[in-house]
Amino acid sequence: MNYKSFLLALALCPAVMRATDVKSPDGRLVVSVDLQNGTPVYKVNYDKREVVKKSKLGFELYENFQDRKVIDFQNNFEKLKEVTSTFDETWTPVWGEESSIRNNYNSLTLELKHNDGRLMNICFRVFNDGIGFRYEFPQQGATNYYFIKEEKSEFAMAGDNMAWWIPGDYDTQEYSYTTCKLSEIAGKMPSVLKAHEGNSSSTTFSNTGVQTSLQMKTPDGLYVNIHEAALVDYPCMHLNLDDKNLTFTSWLTPDATGMKGYIQAPFHTPWRTIMITDSATKALASRLILNLNEPCALDDVSWIHPTKYVGVWWAMITGKNTWAYTDLPNVKIDETRYDKCEPNGKHLANNDSVRRYIDFASKHGFSEVLVEGWNKGWEDWFGKTKEYVFDFLTPYPDFDIKALNDYAHSKGVKLMMHHETSGSARNYERHMDKAYQLMKKYGYDAVKSGYVGPILPRGEYHYGQWMVNHYLYAIKKAADYKIMVNAHEAVRPTGLCRTYPNLVGNESARGTEYEAFGGNTPDHTTILPFTRLQGGPMDYTPGIFEMNISKFADNSSKVNSTLARQLGLYVTMYSPLQMAADMPEHYEQFMDAFQFIKDVAIDWDKSVYLEAEPGDYITIARKAKGSEDWFVGNTSDENGHQSVLKLDFLTPGKKYTATIYADAKNADYQNNPQAYTIKKQAVTSKSILKLKAARGGGFAISIKAN
Amino acid sequence: MNYKSFLLALALCPAVMRATDVKSPDGRLVVSVDLQNGTPVYKVNYDKREVVKKSKLGFELYENFQDRKVIDFQNNFEKLKEVTSTFDETWTPVWGEESSIRNNYNSLTLELKHNDGRLMNICFRVFNDGIGFRYEFPQQGATNYYFIKEEKSEFAMAGDNMAWWIPGDYDTQEYSYTTCKLSEIAGKMPSVLKAHEGNSSSTTFSNTGVQTSLQMKTPDGLYVNIHEAALVDYPCMHLNLDDKNLTFTSWLTPDATGMKGYIQAPFHTPWRTIMITDSATKALASRLILNLNEPCALDDVSWIHPTKYVGVWWAMITGKNTWAYTDLPNVKIDETRYDKCEPNGKHLANNDSVRRYIDFASKHGFSEVLVEGWNKGWEDWFGKTKEYVFDFLTPYPDFDIKALNDYAHSKGVKLMMHHETSGSARNYERHMDKAYQLMKKYGYDAVKSGYVGPILPRGEYHYGQWMVNHYLYAIKKAADYKIMVNAHEAVRPTGLCRTYPNLVGNESARGTEYEAFGGNTPDHTTILPFTRLQGGPMDYTPGIFEMNISKFADNSSKVNSTLARQLGLYVTMYSPLQMAADMPEHYEQFMDAFQFIKDVAIDWDKSVYLEAEPGDYITIARKAKGSEDWFVGNTSDENGHQSVLKLDFLTPGKKYTATIYADAKNADYQNNPQAYTIKKQAVTSKSILKLKAARGGGFAISIKAN
Repeated sequence: MNYKSFLLALALCPAVMRATDVKSPDGRLVVSVDLQNGTPVYKVNYDKREVVKKSKLGFELYENFQDRKVIDFQNNFEKLKEVTSTFDETWTPVWGEESSIRNNYNSLTLELKHNDGRLMNICFRVFNDGIGFRYEFPQQGATNYYFIKEEKSEFAMAGDNMAWWIPGDYDTQEYSYTTCKLSEIAGKMPSVLKAHEGNSSSTTFSNTGVQTSLQMKTPDGLYVNIHEAALVDYPCMHLNLDDKNLTFTSWLTPDATGMKGYIQAPFHTPWRTIMITDSATKALASRLILNLNEPCALDDVSWIHPTKYVGVWWAMITGKNTWAYTDLPNVKIDETRYDKCEPNGKHLANNDSVRRYIDFASKHGFSEVLVEGWNKGWEDWFGKTKEYVFDFLTPYPDFDIKALNDYAHSKGVKLMMHHETSGSARNYERHMDKAYQLMKKYGYDAVKSGYVGPILPRGEYHYGQWMVNHYLYAIKKAADYKIMVNAHEAVRPTGLCRTYPNLVGNESARGTEYEAFGGNTPDHTTILPFTRLQGGPMDYTPGIFEMNISKFADNSSKVNSTLARQLGLYVTMYSPLQMAADMPEHYEQFMDAFQFIKDVAIDWDKSVYLEAEPGDYITIARKAKGSEDWFVGNTSDENGHQSVLKLDFLTPGKKYTATIYADAKNADYQNNPQAYTIKKQAVTSKSILKLKAARGGGFAISIKAN
Repeated sequence: MNYKSFLLALALCPAVMRATDVKSPDGRLVVSVDLQNGTPVYKVNYDKREVVKKSKLGFELYENFQDRKVIDFQNNFEKLKEVTSTFDETWTPVWGEESSIRNNYNSLTLELKHNDGRLMNICFRVFNDGIGFRYEFPQQGATNYYFIKEEKSEFAMAGDNMAWWIPGDYDTQEYSYTTCKLSEIAGKMPSVLKAHEGNSSSTTFSNTGVQTSLQMKTPDGLYVNIHEAALVDYPCMHLNLDDKNLTFTSWLTPDATGMKGYIQAPFHTPWRTIMITDSATKALASRLILNLNEPCALDDVSWIHPTKYVGVWWAMITGKNTWAYTDLPNVKIDETRYDKCEPNGKHLANNDSVRRYIDFASKHGFSEVLVEGWNKGWEDWFGKTKEYVFDFLTPYPDFDIKALNDYAHSKGVKLMMHHETSGSARNYERHMDKAYQLMKKYGYDAVKSGYVGPILPRGEYHYGQWMVNHYLYAIKKAADYKIMVNAHEAVRPTGLCRTYPNLVGNESARGTEYEAFGGNTPDHTTILPFTRLQGGPMDYTPGIFEMNISKFADNSSKVNSTLARQLGLYVTMYSPLQMAADMPEHYEQFMDAFQFIKDVAIDWDKSVYLEAEPGDYITIARKAKGSEDWFVGNTSDENGHQSVLKLDFLTPGKKYTATIYADAKNADYQNNPQAYTIKKQAVTSKSILKLKAARGGGFAISIKAN
């Protein structure tokens, strides 16, 4: 062997290769990437503390669709090349928590060749607040199709972290969070699932399966979050925990045949993200997910606007009124003659009520009015795998679509469209063009879509590749019509709103509606910003002022929040789309508190995360876009919280007037939720405010520059 | 017990009820319907001979989609009522084998109530040439959804009939027929399936499973055919044989979850048909399937026209040319830059070739030119479960869609569109409006669609309810654009062309293309009119003149037919859409024979079925619509056939000139297929012609009124 061939042998021999370290720009976070005996592995340290232990990467593939011979695509690789680079730019979101975002990382791409001849690259990006990695499949001669049995990305936790988790589920994300150590998940899973029985669709898969974004805290106090970014044409990832080794492995959502995913090269998977910060507030401040998404794909974004809205909704969710116009037991959308049917008398989307909501919106400065239950079909709409449930086109007889839109426009308000699909994706796609055209005809520019119930095509799941493809199809097609989308029950967001900023909201978690279905846990809103909101804004629909639902509906649920906290949520639950979800008659009883909802901004130059601990409390200050005004919000758990707020985020030397909406001393989410105080005081950047959130309480502050 | 309650008990006690007989208008066919111990049963006699023995009717249902508890919906019924009626009308098809069709039957509807409270009616219609029955589900309070585990319609054959059958398959109908007794099917199945391996998609289910339309002949010489009519929003039916009892039971095509079908009342299933005639020619003359379909649903049918066409097709099927423009191994439809790619030099849908076909069509009186391979994507199109294969919009660089259509129109010819979907139904539906709009923009009025390869949504089958719904969606949407549809690989037709006469053709069987894939059996075209054609016309694409494919392509297949038979097929294989499938250069070698293809009509006032025996021979005479001209065709099996044809169908006293295209004496499909004779002679209604079809031969006669 001469010298040259020795070097070659060295290069090809995995056993003697050394790991490559990629450091974050600040040097604190280090990812070590290696190929060990043909298997790609990585580990992650933060401040020299091990956070992710050696974890394998790769796939199990099937040979093809028909003959499901398994190909081990996690081992038997050789390294062809490593490519490193550095990236640093600052970009401007169309809307957001801040008006300018820095995207700065070091990257490493490991170019691999499998012993079956196929190529795969693994690309890492290392930021100060976390990492992303993804698999890339370059085009390569004749073998360009990959049939995924399972993605095998490991996340080996270095310790028995505390976790704020919800069960892995192919069909719903609408769970309350459970807080426990990783080693305790399996023990708690049965009771968690039992407590959530009855969702309109649910498919769980493992007693250690959890969803992303998964928030954790290490025994030595680091905040670690696993999620994904830029989920496009690929199944949504869950995590399955080996709780002996504290190692998560990716668990993709299957299709109707049990296959997980289908790839045609050139292709790359979504980014798998591990956010690591040494404080909870830094976790909230992270833009990791957005930065891992592609820049805006729309040429013209002038028509996209943050929106504060009211809606014909809460009265139906609580059971006071109905979406349905009649009590018919059975509807066929093209056959049922609604004009011959007896109305049930509880249908709220009628001309009079909608006019009242329009008047209210106009009077108080809301720009849109959501109206659900406007279109025929609601008598008989989900759970039967019925395909043709709605046509998205035909109003009930008591909803005059032209007159109501005209009336709204005359009042400076727009109606917001509602497209409930009942999970029937083909039916929605068949009607989509006409539905969007109808919207443009009458002046709608935003739609709330919904996917309640099992998916059709039958056997597909809400979060499989088929539906992931559908949701983005709907968003892109809406963009063609200059329509903003707020998709409920769709797959959890992964930052795609950067690329398609007309995706102004998602539900994809347990929202305020559950306050009418037995209630949310008091700590729920102290967790969501760490988890669900990492991927994009949530249409949480805060602003409930009447917590005792039995006062107006045959419903014993109570809203597990004080009124003051409902105000705080407008700041803590960032969204460019904010609803005042309660009914006008309830707001009219508390007009002084309602003033905060009227005043609060919905688009921001800057956000300052003042204090936070998942499951306990969050306090955030945000500067309104293009203004010197600030808004502060707090939400606290069942223990309440004592805040000491330094207002040093204010411009030094400037004078402001703060209006403080706080829980009254005797407020309590269970016994006295509507007790609040409002006080005004002059403040400057040197002010310190001491505020106490009640049990299940919170506060809100509007700080106006003088 | 008083007298009244005794009568009531009598009425409710199935054991003492007598069967109700329903007779055909001519009284020869008698269906006896009964409820025996709570189970609906029927039997069928013809001329007092038992044809169908006592057979049960009903279903196995699931309680719902999620919890698949089985409900026995074949037993435990009580009879509520029987309703009888008589119907007699004559209707006019938009196109067809005759210009006027009589629809005459006696009917019985048995109204039943299951012991779970649900209602089901079974409706029988009894014609002179067969029966139809279907299940009807009236609307009934709150229980309107039915989840079908299996339909359990029995067809108990009275003897060990001879059968001309193809295997039951959820994904292909492109089989050769096997002729054997019912008791022999299971024994032959393995070798039949083995011989057909390699279809682009195939899913069989039982070694006694067969497809409809199934032609049989009883030991005492009756012709019996089982099929279905008016398949709408329901899975396609196969038949599974209990070969000990010679009883078929319906076997529906499942969906991706294994469920068979989904019903929302009010609903009725397709008709299950049993055609019974005492001669083979009467079987060919039957309009049973059309009569059981609904009348035309289109207000304006002026744009629908029978079409004789040529096409850029056979040269690709045989392998001489390609659909693909390049030899790229991998295509992404929105990314591949064809303008930068090297052409493969074999792409036939290019400007020069298409012009040549247009010239040929114009010169010889063809109204349309099909062009396959005009649009990008063909390099990489099926078998990988790829979803976005074609966009149906973008031509290859060498196909100038505007110029070619303009050129065609200047020559009095239209181009015919081609939409190959590769089974990717969602992708087709997403592009359908734009694709049809493109057609209208350039002047196309007909589309050949295709569904090669496994279906997407993955797990669905070609003949399941999901796809049955899709095919009709495509036909209805095409009608909105005044476009005629010829759907290949779609579900076998069931007479829906009566209701939607823009469905001018289907493939849905083994067509001429298989002559280039190893060949069709010589008896194939003597069977298809008894089976596949019962449901509607087939785009069989006859007219191949060059039987030795290796002369022009690297393909050792030989066309198993004489040239004269290829002419005869234009009459025996009824279709309003007839292709001259061979290449212009082949026709130019045999212009005298080609004259028949130019002359033959494609729409008819009257059809006379002169002689026939499935598997042996068929001879049909047809009178051209609005003309005194007649055309006669014969197709014969590997034994040839001696015909003695009385021309007594001609108008008495009228003089005609017959041009007879016959096999030459030494013609033979294997050794001498191109040997034919053409002779002219004067004929009248008193003439008798003696003609001999060679082995695998046939003949064609054009009879022009003087």
